[in-house]
Amino acid sequence: VSAHQFPVRVYYEDTDAAGIVYYANYLKFAERARTEMMRDMGFEHELMRREHDLALAVRRCVIDYLLPAKLDDTLIIATTMLAVAGAALELEQEVRRGEAVLARLLLRIACLNTAGRPRRLPPALAAAAQRVSRHASTMVAQHAR
Amino acid sequence: VSAHQFPVRVYYEDTDAAGIVYYANYLKFAERARTEMMRDMGFEHELMRREHDLALAVRRCVIDYLLPAKLDDTLIIATTMLAVAGAALELEQEVRRGEAVLARLLLRIACLNTAGRPRRLPPALAAAAQRVSRHASTMVAQHAR
Amino acid sequence: VSAHQFPVRVYYEDTDAAGIVYYANYLKFAERARTEMMRDMGFEHELMRREHDLALAVRRCVIDYLLPAKLDDTLIIATTMLAVAGAALELEQEVRRGEAVLARLLLRIACLNTAGRPRRLPPALAAAAQRVSRHASTMVAQHAR
Amino acid sequence: VSAHQFPVRVYYEDTDAAGIVYYANYLKFAERARTEMMRDMGFEHELMRREHDLALAVRRCVIDYLLPAKLDDTLIIATTMLAVAGAALELEQEVRRGEAVLARLLLRIACLNTAGRPRRLPPALAAAAQRVSRHASTMVAQHAR
Repeated sequence: VSAHQFPVRVYYEDTDAAGIVYYANYLKFAERARTEMMRDMGFEHELMRREHDLALAVRRCVIDYLLPAKLDDTLIIATTMLAVAGAALELEQEVRRGEAVLARLLLRIACLNTAGRPRRLPPALAAAAQRVSRHASTMVAQHAR
Repeated sequence: VSAHQFPVRVYYEDTDAAGIVYYANYLKFAERARTEMMRDMGFEHELMRREHDLALAVRRCVIDYLLPAKLDDTLIIATTMLAVAGAALELEQEVRRGEAVLARLLLRIACLNTAGRPRRLPPALAAAAQRVSRHASTMVAQHAR
Repeated sequence: VSAHQFPVRVYYEDTDAAGIVYYANYLKFAERARTEMMRDMGFEHELMRREHDLALAVRRCVIDYLLPAKLDDTLIIATTMLAVAGAALELEQEVRRGEAVLARLLLRIACLNTAGRPRRLPPALAAAAQRVSRHASTMVAQHAR
Repeated sequence: VSAHQFPVRVYYEDTDAAGIVYYANYLKFAERARTEMMRDMGFEHELMRREHDLALAVRRCVIDYLLPAKLDDTLIIATTMLAVAGAALELEQEVRRGEAVLARLLLRIACLNTAGRPRRLPPALAAAAQRVSRHASTMVAQHAR
């Protein structure tokens, strides 16, 4: 319910000779969705860098490929913040077509300053992320029942 | 005025270490816009292939790079049909950021059957394309004054 | 020692505006290396499809990003077969620059027929894979001491 | 005869759902070949930037698509320097499979300093380029007979 939702259309550039979306391109879709979620929270890349000396770097990505996406598909990328700790975020992202989940990603993302050193999330971002995250935890708890 | 307009956001995937959009990626943006223009005219890829035994293949692309696009930019891809002849289309596409034209493409596109042989545009598509094209010619004429 | 080694040069297309290789592109490097390893074992994509009705599909990919790769880097992709079971392969891949490991991938790959159903590895491929895999197990055992 | 030759293998990442190499990806192949030609002349990207305050930017690209490249193909990218003028280079590149020319590119490339302003080629690079170019002109002349 509360996950950030971002639509992606599948174009020729995303597909391969097997007739389906190439496996690396789901990571592109996921990054677009994270960027738009951050933007919705007020944290564009350039602004983060300039005003907060902050960049985000993926440290770990686990992706399960469940069903293939195809040319002309309209997909929804659903992003849920799972945890916010000092200098790291954890997210789950699902690539969906209608009710079907085509791929599921778990990401650990580090907060770095522009020199590449770990840094705490700026309070405004931490607060925004935690709001989303608390919401998500409630959801997760409900799912768990 | 009458060109088909399609918005594209620039993400990390589109940029390179020079800090700008990688030169090949403008062709991706342009193809997305052509796909959406065709879809708006009722000609999705899959439907074209299945119902009309039709595929479109770029034969020639001339692209002028005028100004670089950057991370977080919102671009507009403006697509104008220049000519429709038996088995070919000519299009102009501009990549714009606000008033600025960042890149301009001229494309010659062949209509093929799924066996890869040239074939005439199906009448419905030719008519739709010519409507757009005639409109465009008027525009071009007005621009020329 | 015994892992398949494949060199990859980093070009502008692989990098992003953060000045490093874009996170999805490590999956491209890894797939190139797997393709060349299969080719060295005598199993080109087209031949697998045509003669063995076989395609390989990644089911799960876990990737740890340890250090960034950069423009002009020459990387080595080291691929080790971890396990061969009926219709699945498990592989580890490392992206290295000199002695440094920049990224590590664990992959589960399913063997499908061209209709998309699971199928056993053709004996010739299973044997070739097991040879590599046994070799790898020895290695892993030695590493474990 | 004298063109710089660079081999490229076609992987899944390069292809699309039409079963052929995606039209934008020929520009990637071409850029890889130009990078390696420059490297062979002693001008790696990073070195150019650091020691010569020089970056190269494509201003215009004309590409003719003649025949499609396919999965598993080994292509040769043949690069010929056509002209070297103050702050610009002109090149022709052919994408070949055996004797067949699959695509032909004409490129105009500007020499910029890292602030993005036009600058003359450093003499060492101009000399190296002209050597290649003169050689090419001879070739072109011979072809013309």
